[in-house]
Amino acid sequence: MTPIGVVRAPWSEARGAPIQPRYAEGAEGTVEVFPAYREALADLDGFERIWLLYAFDRAAAWAPRVVPFRDTQERGLFATRAPPRPNPIGMSVVRLRRVAGGLLYLAELDVLDGTPVLDIKPYIPAFDAWPNARAGWFAAGRAPLTRADERFE
Amino acid sequence: MTPIGVVRAPWSEARGAPIQPRYAEGAEGTVEVFPAYREALADLDGFERIWLLYAFDRAAAWAPRVVPFRDTQERGLFATRAPPRPNPIGMSVVRLRRVAGGLLYLAELDVLDGTPVLDIKPYIPAFDAWPNARAGWFAAGRAPLTRADERFE
Repeated sequence: MTPIGVVRAPWSEARGAPIQPRYAEGAEGTVEVFPAYREALADLDGFERIWLLYAFDRAAAWAPRVVPFRDTQERGLFATRAPPRPNPIGMSVVRLRRVAGGLLYLAELDVLDGTPVLDIKPYIPAFDAWPNARAGWFAAGRAPLTRADERFE
Repeated sequence: MTPIGVVRAPWSEARGAPIQPRYAEGAEGTVEVFPAYREALADLDGFERIWLLYAFDRAAAWAPRVVPFRDTQERGLFATRAPPRPNPIGMSVVRLRRVAGGLLYLAELDVLDGTPVLDIKPYIPAFDAWPNARAGWFAAGRAPLTRADERFE
């Protein structure tokens, strides 16, 4: 895996950062896409949202069970979106404002400053939007946190 | 990156395989999660859908522009979900039927047999479902393909 770009964002540590784009209203930043990859950005600006895949480069070593930010008890790691994963890949669907000069101008950005970007994909509702999918422990909503703390660093 | 499991599915080559879970009704298969990672599957069975992140292990070398399956003209690679990516990571939101003995029983599976799995995440509508997001070139729907051909192998 080779970084194709880097995130510039308001937060450089987990503490206080939004835990998901859904809770990141007003959080703006950019992805600087490295020159070798800029041609591949053509046509991206027609999409309102994009997926960023990135390395959780400040995550703790992987743990099979964690207490996720939105719950009060341990859950299997693969039933959470928490960073300490065997392959520490993060995934966020952020809002794309515009593309110019190799920079993606983003809003609702929950990714930390300096994060290496691995891939960019368009958000396609016909593929990605399943608004009624049953959501296990998350649906109970035991911990209404919207900002992170240092538990996974 | 280390595989955490492997896909067992009806298709072992791209030609004829569904291009997305949305077009994979009736396509069933499994992910065998390797023993070292099975504890992390706890609580996953409460989720109706899960994200699989996997290696596009049979993809062609990366190309900055491709003609995607759902269009008739070249598009920037990052504006598509096509396999020949700089970091060949695929992402599919499949239906989870049940979890037993380290096996995930899946439906609407668009991933090829033998594909190495890198990560599993729960599908959480509050984070992932944006049904009205504008979808650029995809919305024009110029090529209504639902099955793949060999163009990206």
